[in-house]
Amino acid sequence: VTQKKIRLTQLAELVDGKISGDESLEILRLESIEAAQEGDITFLVKEKNAEMLEKTQASAVIVPLALKEERGKTIIRVKNPYLASAIIHNYLLEKPFESKGIHDSVIIGANNELCENITIEPYTVLGDNVKIGERVFIGAGVYVGDDVIIGNDTVIKANVTVENNTTIGNRVIVHPGTVIGSDGYGYAADERGCHIKRPQVGIVKIDDDVEIGANCCVDRATFGLTWIKSGTKIDNLVQIAHNVEVGENCLLVSQSAASGSTVFGRNVVMGGQAATKGHVSLGDGVMVAGRGGVTRDLEAGGVFGGFPAIPINQWTKAATAFGKVPEMRVELRRLRNEIKELQKKLSRDD
Amino acid sequence: VTQKKIRLTQLAELVDGKISGDESLEILRLESIEAAQEGDITFLVKEKNAEMLEKTQASAVIVPLALKEERGKTIIRVKNPYLASAIIHNYLLEKPFESKGIHDSVIIGANNELCENITIEPYTVLGDNVKIGERVFIGAGVYVGDDVIIGNDTVIKANVTVENNTTIGNRVIVHPGTVIGSDGYGYAADERGCHIKRPQVGIVKIDDDVEIGANCCVDRATFGLTWIKSGTKIDNLVQIAHNVEVGENCLLVSQSAASGSTVFGRNVVMGGQAATKGHVSLGDGVMVAGRGGVTRDLEAGGVFGGFPAIPINQWTKAATAFGKVPEMRVELRRLRNEIKELQKKLSRDD
Amino acid sequence: VTQKKIRLTQLAELVDGKISGDESLEILRLESIEAAQEGDITFLVKEKNAEMLEKTQASAVIVPLALKEERGKTIIRVKNPYLASAIIHNYLLEKPFESKGIHDSVIIGANNELCENITIEPYTVLGDNVKIGERVFIGAGVYVGDDVIIGNDTVIKANVTVENNTTIGNRVIVHPGTVIGSDGYGYAADERGCHIKRPQVGIVKIDDDVEIGANCCVDRATFGLTWIKSGTKIDNLVQIAHNVEVGENCLLVSQSAASGSTVFGRNVVMGGQAATKGHVSLGDGVMVAGRGGVTRDLEAGGVFGGFPAIPINQWTKAATAFGKVPEMRVELRRLRNEIKELQKKLSRDD
Repeated sequence: VTQKKIRLTQLAELVDGKISGDESLEILRLESIEAAQEGDITFLVKEKNAEMLEKTQASAVIVPLALKEERGKTIIRVKNPYLASAIIHNYLLEKPFESKGIHDSVIIGANNELCENITIEPYTVLGDNVKIGERVFIGAGVYVGDDVIIGNDTVIKANVTVENNTTIGNRVIVHPGTVIGSDGYGYAADERGCHIKRPQVGIVKIDDDVEIGANCCVDRATFGLTWIKSGTKIDNLVQIAHNVEVGENCLLVSQSAASGSTVFGRNVVMGGQAATKGHVSLGDGVMVAGRGGVTRDLEAGGVFGGFPAIPINQWTKAATAFGKVPEMRVELRRLRNEIKELQKKLSRDD
Repeated sequence: VTQKKIRLTQLAELVDGKISGDESLEILRLESIEAAQEGDITFLVKEKNAEMLEKTQASAVIVPLALKEERGKTIIRVKNPYLASAIIHNYLLEKPFESKGIHDSVIIGANNELCENITIEPYTVLGDNVKIGERVFIGAGVYVGDDVIIGNDTVIKANVTVENNTTIGNRVIVHPGTVIGSDGYGYAADERGCHIKRPQVGIVKIDDDVEIGANCCVDRATFGLTWIKSGTKIDNLVQIAHNVEVGENCLLVSQSAASGSTVFGRNVVMGGQAATKGHVSLGDGVMVAGRGGVTRDLEAGGVFGGFPAIPINQWTKAATAFGKVPEMRVELRRLRNEIKELQKKLSRDD
Repeated sequence: VTQKKIRLTQLAELVDGKISGDESLEILRLESIEAAQEGDITFLVKEKNAEMLEKTQASAVIVPLALKEERGKTIIRVKNPYLASAIIHNYLLEKPFESKGIHDSVIIGANNELCENITIEPYTVLGDNVKIGERVFIGAGVYVGDDVIIGNDTVIKANVTVENNTTIGNRVIVHPGTVIGSDGYGYAADERGCHIKRPQVGIVKIDDDVEIGANCCVDRATFGLTWIKSGTKIDNLVQIAHNVEVGENCLLVSQSAASGSTVFGRNVVMGGQAATKGHVSLGDGVMVAGRGGVTRDLEAGGVFGGFPAIPINQWTKAATAFGKVPEMRVELRRLRNEIKELQKKLSRDD
């Protein structure tokens, strides 16, 4: 998978690391500590696993600053080995974008502006008035509706659907099967209980450096926009309803859901299967644990769990105690009886 | 997005509304109260937000009957502004179906009956014996299996899969990525714990005016049919298992699930991520709150929440009290000790 | 749907059953007990429903060994009618694979090895170095990346996406819209809270006889492999994260999720919407009830429910008692007051 041999000194520089050992090494690949071979670099996140240094076949290991041991290995000491290894891995894999052009089978509507150095794979269909930036990759079987704008260096994988009027920024990645810009879920019930569809005339806007997993849904706004701001990363099977606003650098883990008109601040984390009620607002840095269900506005910086979501410490204690509720009922009945006995005794004594 | 200028009097008539103000107005667009411009109509759902009348740029506002104020605006008073605005919005956006015909690249099997005035976009594949009604739109990259029937005015968006023998009614909308008619999940375990697939030989039937969101799954029946009745609206990422029967005008919110052989009456509401155990039955008008988990039959008209689902009032109280369980345990222990003290004292006194 | 008339004696032999009645019958179809007609075989799982024998129009009925009654029907007595009926149904529907060849529109990359007797439907795209075994069916609009291996008798339905380097075994079924091999969800946060993508350079391996439902996601590993072992059956909308290992013959019901690096033993069952925290391990035969949330390693053979998942009996009791928590709080307050009274009384008495 890797492309090029890189000098270890160059890698160390990249992550502000200090080499101890053979500074002349050249590195081809980054691998996991178990699978790494000679010539590879790997990483060790926790000091307490220092014995892995001896077991790994890697030629060099990225380790935490505090790790004293070396066990005969060439090491790069960095503040944050998890981060440094990601940076180095990306660097090792980096290669210039190779445009394969637009496959003959691609259907292109009217008035499109497509940069030259892009790749569009077979059987993809573009509507009218589509603008596509530089070094964009669009996979096979993708549908892009009318009036869609796609920025530079963006990757849209196979079988994605992007509906009309969607705007996608630079360096965005959208994984297969995801649907962007489908109608929001909005109806008005009439007297007979029939649901009259509310037209969904808003759009979706996805900012730079967003990544969206496979088989997600991002609905267009009823009016205005559904907006995913820069740097937010979304896992698979996530639901983003109409008029949701997701702030910068949020993490939405698999199967989580943002109901209509939810507003997330920056760096909000939604655990797996977590969800919000519509029209609530989560402050910057809020973390909702997996399966958390948010039913009210949450103040910035808080960590919450449970449904309805409460502060995580409180939830953890309550969830642990939950299994004891039946015993507690029994104990309550026992206490009730013993109090009755005491009351009887006392009234006799009186 | 809008097509035509319509006289305000005509719009008022449409929703049985009473104009107060400039009856000569002509309207082009319906917009949200914040975004509306001169020439637009908008709507105000709640009387308490009457001050928005002054802030909006809209030329006309649909308001509740009871709202006295006008603040210099032309208003239409209606019983239900939310409903009236949906009706007016649809009316303003209405345009005659424009058939673009069947794209040259569409693959069509044998013995098909396709009406002339339809649109089928590129790279869609139809099996044998497919019947398609008038004014149907089928998006790009759709797969329609053999023996499928699709009614009039139905819209199947891009990248949808409709498997063999499915029947879809009139005015149905299916959003991108949804799969209809995939095999139900049914196996029989043998002595060694291997799962023998049960053939799934039933079908899916979708009645008129149903809307199905993006990336949903509607499984075919094992025998007989999985049936979604008219007027039901389904959000994104919803699971409808084999042999489920969903009554008229139900609402199934995002990520909810109906397990095998569940029967929903009319106007049932399943909140986001709500789910049912297999083989249960929910009476007409049952509402299950978000995340509710239905484990038994539910009587008509009830509102339920929690897992297992209980009456919503009971659930709300219990969910609120849940965080107090640890304190309750502490208090129980305290009471136990105090009772012991009392018992000791009393036995001493005896 | 059925193909051929089969002698009843042959069917009985297939499932080690004993016929009582007309041994000369020939059977065309297996149907549900309600829908079966003359000439059909059906099955009765529970003895207590013996009266259905009279109501069904079926010519023959598969029943449990213990069922004495026959009510004038020809019956086959077997140990496990549910299993036997599945085996017989499959047998009746069996037909030789008919290769329709590779449709002219299929795009095929370089260096591929495709067996001759396969079917690939229109507008499917194969990358380079793809190997496809005998009697494979690949539906319309499928994307298969580079270096993918697909075994014999495997079925990949329409609009599936299989990313690079995936290995799929024999007799695997993948339903529409499913995505295999999308990037795992892995980032390293930098000092500013930006999320640096970790390259996901591992693969997905799917062993023999696995079935994967519609619109599922199976992510590739960060390093190494995401591995679904033989005989495992996965329902719709299920999430399998990076580096998950699912053992043989597991059942993962709809909307369930296995978080990163989860390890399942053999014959693990995850109920609908159940989920695991990352890096936990579930022993052989573990069953997690619907909506269960696994937060720690679970010992083999256990049955668990709730979140965090606890033994199912404990959970069932606690979940039932849950609605009583508010009453318990009231009772606690009452007891507190009565104890105070007693204490007062006693101190007065002293």
